[in-house]
Amino acid sequence: MRSTPRILNLVFRPSSASSVLRERVRRPAFLEKLAEPSDLAPLFQHDDYIGWSGFTGVGYPKRVPTAIADYVENNKLQSQKRFNLFVGASVGTEVEDRWAKLDMIARRYPHQVGKEIAKGINAGRIEFADKHLSMFPQDLTYGYYSLKKNHGDPKKHLDWAIVEATAITEDGHIVPGASVGATPEILESAEKIIIEVNTHLPNLEGLHDISHSFIPPHRQPYLISHPEDRIGKTSIAIDPDRVVAIIESHLPDNTGQNAPETADSRAIAGHLIEFLSAEVEAGRLPKSLLPLQSGIGNVANSIIGGLAAGPFDKVMVWTEVLQDTFLSFFDSGKLDFATATSIKFSPEGFDHFYAHWAEYKDRLMLRSQQVANAPEVIRRLGVIAMNTPLEVDIYAHANSTCALGSRMLNGLGGSADFLRNAKLSIMHTPSSRPTKSDPTGISCIVPFVSHVDQTEHDLDVIVTEQGLADLRGLSPRERAPVIIKNCAHPDYRDSLLDYYERSLHECLAAGRGHEPHMLRNAFKFHTNFIEHGTMKVTGWD
Amino acid sequence: MRSTPRILNLVFRPSSASSVLRERVRRPAFLEKLAEPSDLAPLFQHDDYIGWSGFTGVGYPKRVPTAIADYVENNKLQSQKRFNLFVGASVGTEVEDRWAKLDMIARRYPHQVGKEIAKGINAGRIEFADKHLSMFPQDLTYGYYSLKKNHGDPKKHLDWAIVEATAITEDGHIVPGASVGATPEILESAEKIIIEVNTHLPNLEGLHDISHSFIPPHRQPYLISHPEDRIGKTSIAIDPDRVVAIIESHLPDNTGQNAPETADSRAIAGHLIEFLSAEVEAGRLPKSLLPLQSGIGNVANSIIGGLAAGPFDKVMVWTEVLQDTFLSFFDSGKLDFATATSIKFSPEGFDHFYAHWAEYKDRLMLRSQQVANAPEVIRRLGVIAMNTPLEVDIYAHANSTCALGSRMLNGLGGSADFLRNAKLSIMHTPSSRPTKSDPTGISCIVPFVSHVDQTEHDLDVIVTEQGLADLRGLSPRERAPVIIKNCAHPDYRDSLLDYYERSLHECLAAGRGHEPHMLRNAFKFHTNFIEHGTMKVTGWD
Repeated sequence: MRSTPRILNLVFRPSSASSVLRERVRRPAFLEKLAEPSDLAPLFQHDDYIGWSGFTGVGYPKRVPTAIADYVENNKLQSQKRFNLFVGASVGTEVEDRWAKLDMIARRYPHQVGKEIAKGINAGRIEFADKHLSMFPQDLTYGYYSLKKNHGDPKKHLDWAIVEATAITEDGHIVPGASVGATPEILESAEKIIIEVNTHLPNLEGLHDISHSFIPPHRQPYLISHPEDRIGKTSIAIDPDRVVAIIESHLPDNTGQNAPETADSRAIAGHLIEFLSAEVEAGRLPKSLLPLQSGIGNVANSIIGGLAAGPFDKVMVWTEVLQDTFLSFFDSGKLDFATATSIKFSPEGFDHFYAHWAEYKDRLMLRSQQVANAPEVIRRLGVIAMNTPLEVDIYAHANSTCALGSRMLNGLGGSADFLRNAKLSIMHTPSSRPTKSDPTGISCIVPFVSHVDQTEHDLDVIVTEQGLADLRGLSPRERAPVIIKNCAHPDYRDSLLDYYERSLHECLAAGRGHEPHMLRNAFKFHTNFIEHGTMKVTGWD
Repeated sequence: MRSTPRILNLVFRPSSASSVLRERVRRPAFLEKLAEPSDLAPLFQHDDYIGWSGFTGVGYPKRVPTAIADYVENNKLQSQKRFNLFVGASVGTEVEDRWAKLDMIARRYPHQVGKEIAKGINAGRIEFADKHLSMFPQDLTYGYYSLKKNHGDPKKHLDWAIVEATAITEDGHIVPGASVGATPEILESAEKIIIEVNTHLPNLEGLHDISHSFIPPHRQPYLISHPEDRIGKTSIAIDPDRVVAIIESHLPDNTGQNAPETADSRAIAGHLIEFLSAEVEAGRLPKSLLPLQSGIGNVANSIIGGLAAGPFDKVMVWTEVLQDTFLSFFDSGKLDFATATSIKFSPEGFDHFYAHWAEYKDRLMLRSQQVANAPEVIRRLGVIAMNTPLEVDIYAHANSTCALGSRMLNGLGGSADFLRNAKLSIMHTPSSRPTKSDPTGISCIVPFVSHVDQTEHDLDVIVTEQGLADLRGLSPRERAPVIIKNCAHPDYRDSLLDYYERSLHECLAAGRGHEPHMLRNAFKFHTNFIEHGTMKVTGWD
């Protein structure tokens, strides 16, 4: 029998619990473990493996990570206490970016957002590896991220889990905040658990659908054949003996404003809605469409806005993250039901949502990212997936992660989970991006993407403000002219066509004309940018 | 109500049916449609959309395609009658290569094997597009391959299906040969059906598990949680009214010999079996392992041979294709059950298999490729996937399809279905390949693969005869030195390390050091090969 992990010298302060906290924590023994973050901070050791709750800056622990950062800063332990940090996706920049700035992060998987953390990764201080968000939790439970860890309990791949809750049940089970992410698997993998009960948020009990993640050969089907199907419980089961401390928190999620729409984002949305309408017309989609997945950003906002005004009815959403715009989609009466792993509203969006909680709660469900992003369910439901790449190439490979092939931005996220398995796999991007000196100095359509995250086998449609390329059923030689003519910015169209035609000529002559390239010139847009600050090349040799 | 498609002037010859055929065709009305291939050949029109049964050169129609080729040749219709040809994977070269040689193929999706067909694709005469084998059948039923077709019945995406059967039931349902592939969806999509009943083969009734493929939003879970689970019927249901002719065939599948083992293939298998043993030791795999998927070729043969001699017990197989070596794996007593979508034995292997059919038949099951390659099932079962690439790069992207980025060999096949979803994703390759003048003129480990089919997120282990790189949990900067040191051929090791270190230095200085590259040199191995016939470069500038 495992005994409760011993925390030496930790002072508990049960009497300081607020009345709201006493209501929210329905297991009295846990209230006896009420502690202060500053008392916990010194317990974290260099090289510890730590998991946090949180996804897209929502539902992450706020007070303990901040206290650890304070402790490191006050004791000048920068670069001496460095941790291995695992979170379903990104968390608020005020915590993970601060950790990065204090050089407290040795390793950070599998997604992040923040200037300081990206800087640390690209400067070689932070080891970062990308993983499909559906796979990260299972690989964690398999022990794949702790192969180099000096193991205590070999089934406990993390030393600590620090998670946010909005309530704790009589059984000690955890009701999360407005995200689920990888929290179930992080809790399952951790030796010691710290729970931050957030009493600023409402008790979100009933919002979540938590299924147990079995490991092969014992894994079972996800019996979901409709976005509304519930297959689990409303809280995350844990072993109460592993809870070493409870913290009370009042801090809101640090979400920002949504990206505003632009003329380009509206043009992209217009092309897409026209395309989807034509698919309905042709009988390849029902009038209610199929469950939608949409990324984050202004194009996603424009698309959802356009759908709310469009001819579609009783629409369903199966996605990773919900943004403010889904609130107006609900309010338009066109959206019937939405499920995701995180709700990333703006502060005003959250105010509206919590104020009208009773109206929304039966039309929403949050699942773990292992389920929300499961290839199994995405393929079964026939999801329509829409995501933004950094760049796509003339044969429809896409780069979602690394600028110039090397500089990590945020990570792959769930883009490949959705695009590989969707019924319609759509990528939308502006055709060009500005540099300091040239409003179209970067082309988002290139001869050969500098990092491949989505392969040519996984994209059906590419759309820019210039137009839409329907690639279904086309060979590479048929795709290239369509992508260039329909999607590329006019400043790059001739250059790309010239690349394609010269490549075709050379490769056909050499008996390798299936997917023509001049490999010596394949990255010339990129090397020209590195050397001259623009992708506008003077020609091909 | 749809009427039976009318075939004008077609003469039926029911009296010519052999007694075996009368036994095999249990629906008497079908015997009335017995025809001769040469009478059918003229009915095929230029630009027709045609689907064949068959997968890896097994279970394909033999007589009708040959008769069409004869007709084209005899009437000098080369380049005038050109067809759009859809098959689950490859078929015997004596039919599809002959079609290619006669310039009868305008379009061929999604996989092929044969010198002439590859030549046609790379010379620009045949449009070919690659697709995950699990997705091809569903995209066919969605109508994605017939968007440009001048539709008769808009639900019938193919004009013709020509399929092989070993029996026909009382209901007119089809019992396939030794492969299933995409035959169910090809039959479902075809306006007119021709069945070649092969009386040379035994009646394989009971070998197959055929589940109906619904289209979203009506798709249901595949209720498979063990390789033995049966979810369908033993034959393919069709609408009997669409059958326009029955043909009797005696031709065997034109399979060749298995690739012989080599010192390198044995070395690779040795590294892999050592690795799997260590995983069992560490408790990350059960002693029976998890269901195995293995590609085709000599390394696959050595691995399966090594497993039969190894410490594992009660092993299961969930794969795409079974080769001869599985027969000895069964006979060793170590293999409990195997399921695939095709059995590609050598002629002697088939003789042995059919002679001992009673012993094998309850330990084997063939499913459609949509199920055999389903991400859903592969991920659920925790398959151990092993495949061979053309080349891998120092960050673990792999090229499975296009030599020098452009020359299509056979196609992606199911490699990405398995590698993306497996619990252990393994690629094995010799570290180098010979050219005419240099036994190590081609390195299979390169700075940047010239075509990406499998991304860095999808490979756990790379193994060559030199050694094994366990990449789980490693960042790109950690992966590169391990891959180079453990896997690269000594002739290329220093050069690759030099590339990595120079890239690291440059990219860290420029703030893009996550996945370091010198894009100007990324394809230098390949361009050097194009210009000088070897990948051995003299240095990096």
